[in-house]
This record gives sequence, C-alpha cells and structure tokens, in this order.
Amino acid sequence: MTVLILTCQQDVTADMVVAELNGAGVPLLRLDPADFPGGIALSGEYADGAFEGHLRVGDRRVSTREVRSVWVRRPGDPGSSAAEPSAWLTEESSQALYGMLDATGTRWMNRPDAARRARRKPWQLRVAQHSGLPVPATLITTVPGAARDFAARFGDLVVKPVSGTHPTDPPMAVPTTRIAPDTDFSAVAFGPTLLQRRIAKSADIRLTAVGDRLLAARKPAVPDAEDVDVRFAPSTGPWRPVTTPPRVAEAVRAYLRQAELAYGAFDFAEDADGVWWFLECNQSGQFGFVELDTGQPIARALAEWLAREDAGPATR
Amino acid sequence: MTVLILTCQQDVTADMVVAELNGAGVPLLRLDPADFPGGIALSGEYADGAFEGHLRVGDRRVSTREVRSVWVRRPGDPGSSAAEPSAWLTEESSQALYGMLDATGTRWMNRPDAARRARRKPWQLRVAQHSGLPVPATLITTVPGAARDFAARFGDLVVKPVSGTHPTDPPMAVPTTRIAPDTDFSAVAFGPTLLQRRIAKSADIRLTAVGDRLLAARKPAVPDAEDVDVRFAPSTGPWRPVTTPPRVAEAVRAYLRQAELAYGAFDFAEDADGVWWFLECNQSGQFGFVELDTGQPIARALAEWLAREDAGPATR
Repeated sequence: MTVLILTCQQDVTADMVVAELNGAGVPLLRLDPADFPGGIALSGEYADGAFEGHLRVGDRRVSTREVRSVWVRRPGDPGSSAAEPSAWLTEESSQALYGMLDATGTRWMNRPDAARRARRKPWQLRVAQHSGLPVPATLITTVPGAARDFAARFGDLVVKPVSGTHPTDPPMAVPTTRIAPDTDFSAVAFGPTLLQRRIAKSADIRLTAVGDRLLAARKPAVPDAEDVDVRFAPSTGPWRPVTTPPRVAEAVRAYLRQAELAYGAFDFAEDADGVWWFLECNQSGQFGFVELDTGQPIARALAEWLAREDAGPATR
Repeated sequence: MTVLILTCQQDVTADMVVAELNGAGVPLLRLDPADFPGGIALSGEYADGAFEGHLRVGDRRVSTREVRSVWVRRPGDPGSSAAEPSAWLTEESSQALYGMLDATGTRWMNRPDAARRARRKPWQLRVAQHSGLPVPATLITTVPGAARDFAARFGDLVVKPVSGTHPTDPPMAVPTTRIAPDTDFSAVAFGPTLLQRRIAKSADIRLTAVGDRLLAARKPAVPDAEDVDVRFAPSTGPWRPVTTPPRVAEAVRAYLRQAELAYGAFDFAEDADGVWWFLECNQSGQFGFVELDTGQPIARALAEWLAREDAGPATR
C-alpha cells in the first residue's frame, strides 16, 4: 500500500514528511500533477460495476487499489508542463487525475472539493460559529452605511480580504490591517469588504490539526501593535507549545468534521482573559516554522496519518 | 419568504419558472450575480454566534432570513459587470455572495459546491456504479496500449471529452463521436481520453429529476447512426413521456442523494432489451425542449420545489 504525495519539485515541507515515511519504511510515490500527462501516465477502467486503474511514473507502476492515502500538498496544475499547455488540457487532465483518484475511495489530506470550499472566509466564519468557536464580530458588506454603523458600534477594527489570497501569480498575501472607526467607507460599494472587531491580543495561537491530533503553539504579541497580521508583525519571541483547552479541542474537531478536512492550520488571537478567538483555518497552512520553533512532531503526525492502513472515515 | 433566482437577463427557461411562481403568488427575486457589486448590494454580520444579512436590488430589500430557496440557473460571474472587472474582484465578490448565501442555511438547487463536483465525468461514472445504474464499460487513459487493449475487447466505441464542455467563451460542446477499433491511439499520451463501449441504442432517454419527482422522456433512435450524440443526431420524432422503471427510479434517487443534487438531467441510452444505460447527469441540463415536446410539467415541478416552505433535507 502506497502513500501518494502530490506536490511541486521544490518543497522542503514535503521533504520532512517524506523523510518520516522513509524512516518508517512506508512505500510512497511523490509526483507533480503538472507532469500529467507526460512524465506521469494514468489509466482507469469502469466495468461490471467496479473501477480499477493504475498510475505510472517512470518505472514505478502503482495500482489504484494500492493507494493508501493521498496528500495534496502543493501540486502544480495538471497539464501545465505539457509542450503546448492550454486551459482545455488542464481541465481535462485535472478531471481525469483527481476524478480517478477519487474513484478509488482512498483517504485524502485534504479532498480537493473540501479544500476548495474550506478556503472561503464567509463559510469558515459560519462553520466556526456552528462548531462553538468564539468568532470576533464580523461584517462583510458592499453597503457603506452598514460599514459605518458597524464601525460606530465596535470602534477598533481590522479589514481583511474576503477570499484570503490575491490571485496573482505568484499569489500575493494581503495583510490584515487595522483601521480607524472614522474611515471613509464609501469605497466598499465597489468591492465586498470584510471588517472585524479587533481582538486586543496577548498572544497569537497556531493550532495544527492532523486528523485527531491537535498541536498548539503560542507566541506572545506586542501589546497594541499596528501590525496585527501575525505573518508580518515584528517577532517577540519564538513559538512555544501550549496545551489546547478541552472546549477548544472539541470545537476544532467539530469544525474539521463539518468541513470534511483531515488537516487544518487554525489561527487564533488570545485575549487578556485567555479566550482563543477564531481568525481562520488554512487547510493547506505551512507547519515547518512551528515545528522548527517548538520541536512538535507535526511532520511525524502527518506521516503517521498518511501511513495508516485502516479505511476509517475519510477525515479521521 | 422569497425564492432567489440567480441567472442572466435573457433566459427563457427561467421565464417559464418565474411565470409558475408568479401564478402561485410566491414572492421571488431574480438577479444576475454579474451585477454584484453595483446594482446588487449585500451585507451580512456575524455576531454572538449568529449570522444575519440582507440583499438589496433597486428598491427591493430581502433579509437573508427570508430566503426560502436559491435557484442557480445560469448566473453571470460576480463582478463581471463592474466598470473595472478583474479576477480579484470576481474572486472576492463570488466568495462574499455565495459564502453569505450559504451561511443562511437555505435550500439550493443546486448548491454550488455540489454542482461543481457533479460536472466531473470520472466522478459521475463512479457514483452511477455505486447507485446501481448500468454503466457502459469505460476507459479513461493516457496509455496508448491500454486504449488499444480496450478497443480490442469492446470493438464498437465512442470517444468523449473527460470534462464535458470546451472552456471557450461561449463554451463549445464537443460531440460524442463513434470510432473504429483499429484507430491509432498513440495520441492519447498527450491528453486523457475517454473511450466507452457504444450502446446499440433503440432510443434516447432524458430523465429530469426535480427533488423527488422524476419525469422521463423517450425518443426513438435511428438504428446504427453515425451521429451518436443526441444533441447533434438527426431527429426521428419528438420526445414522448415514458414511465421510469422502479429500479431506475431508486438508483437515480440514490445518485442524487450521493451527489447532493436537487436537480439533475440524466441521459440514458436504451438498448434492444429495454435496459437504460447511464451516459451522464447534467446538473444544469436544459429542460425546455422536453417540456415543449412532452407537455410534462417540469417548470411547475421546479417552481413547487423552490416554493416549499419546509426546511427538510437540502436535496429533497
């Protein structure tokens, strides 16, 4: 039984997990969907109510029945390495590759459909509410009056993109930014805007969920900093392991179940009362920097999840 | 309670359903997501564990709590009517509009996530197999040897695109085409190819599923025609209503449940023994031409599904 890893060639995070799998003697096949078709060949047959196929990369041939799990790490677009790439080839190749892998009934980290849905912030906020995670008051709007009213009620605000990442190539992260309540909100009519009550945070929390295993880390925050986005704020010390409060653990597991995710990197803001406020869950969030600071065995947890032989529920 | 209809301005199929809803006195709001933001304004607030929002089109204001159902018919891309359209605006606007409508917990025909997944043919074939529908032997491959072997075993074949529709603008339908078993298959290495055993069909079957209601129609086929695609084949007479065999009805309902679809247009090929072979399920398939030929009340069935007040399972 083989673990499939779908990622681009240069990926040190994947290297960490590959090392763990190799150490445990688990067969794996690492490939970049960009090389399909071409360096990668795939064939699958539907007959007599069943599906059977195989995947070939160089000399390696893996039957779809032998696929233990699939890790969708940082894959290239199918068809993109072709001599004559086109939107049509990418569409056909994506459907063939992901559609046939899905037909095998394998376990995914994460299933592409669930991953796509899980990126949407308006949906994340609702799932977090349903799961029992505290969510800072948030407004998404194209109505300037609604933005002014929200600012008047909550005062200290941040603004973020609705969709997360700017769709440039390479994608550009748009930082979360603090704004004053007397900002001129008339421009929200031209593009939906996400406003959120700013949490006066004492620390940033990164909780990495790998199946049922939750590994949380904490980094103290600079009080009242202007740079509120943890990705861009000045560092005040390394990440340190922290115990996940039982109620948060329960809520995070409920979130993963509803989102049908096997992996998620949750960002929380911890306030002065020790409450962890949900900011977002990145279904493909990096974990190398946390592992480096904390020594938490995240890569090993991933390798163990991928290596499991049981065919239990897809998201456990 | 209001029915939302998301479609472009010129849409006679939507007009049919709107007429039925108007006749029944059901409030509705028809809008094109292309006009968001701009002619359409939207605002939603997440606070205290709850979500509440509203949608405004001209003078009409609808609370998200009043949305009874959403019909995603033929919507434009959010942001595409803006003075300065961009991929970023479309992404932000799509996430805001569909994410917030999803946050209302409304019933969808069809939910956008389910609709996207349901378009993939490799996935459709597997769901059809799981549901107990007869599926013609099918190969999806980039391996010329596998294609030759399949052709040798099954002889009479058709070839189709894996993904359905060519992603040009306007989209171009690629017809299903009959091919000979001695075809040169070496080109499949350059793009995944779907080969299917050709069913010697006595008739085409179109089954339109609207929630639990199944309306099937039958059109006799020209025996041994070269044009196998019902969309392009010469007509041999109008569509006529036909009773859905109980086993097919049960399997179709299983398919819709697994696919989480409230609407689906199923195409079958009926063979000489009366077996209905699954060809595909189009989650946004047209139904006007069938209603015109058969007099089946498909538009009314849609209107009734959309108008229902109960909050039952999303796909019933």
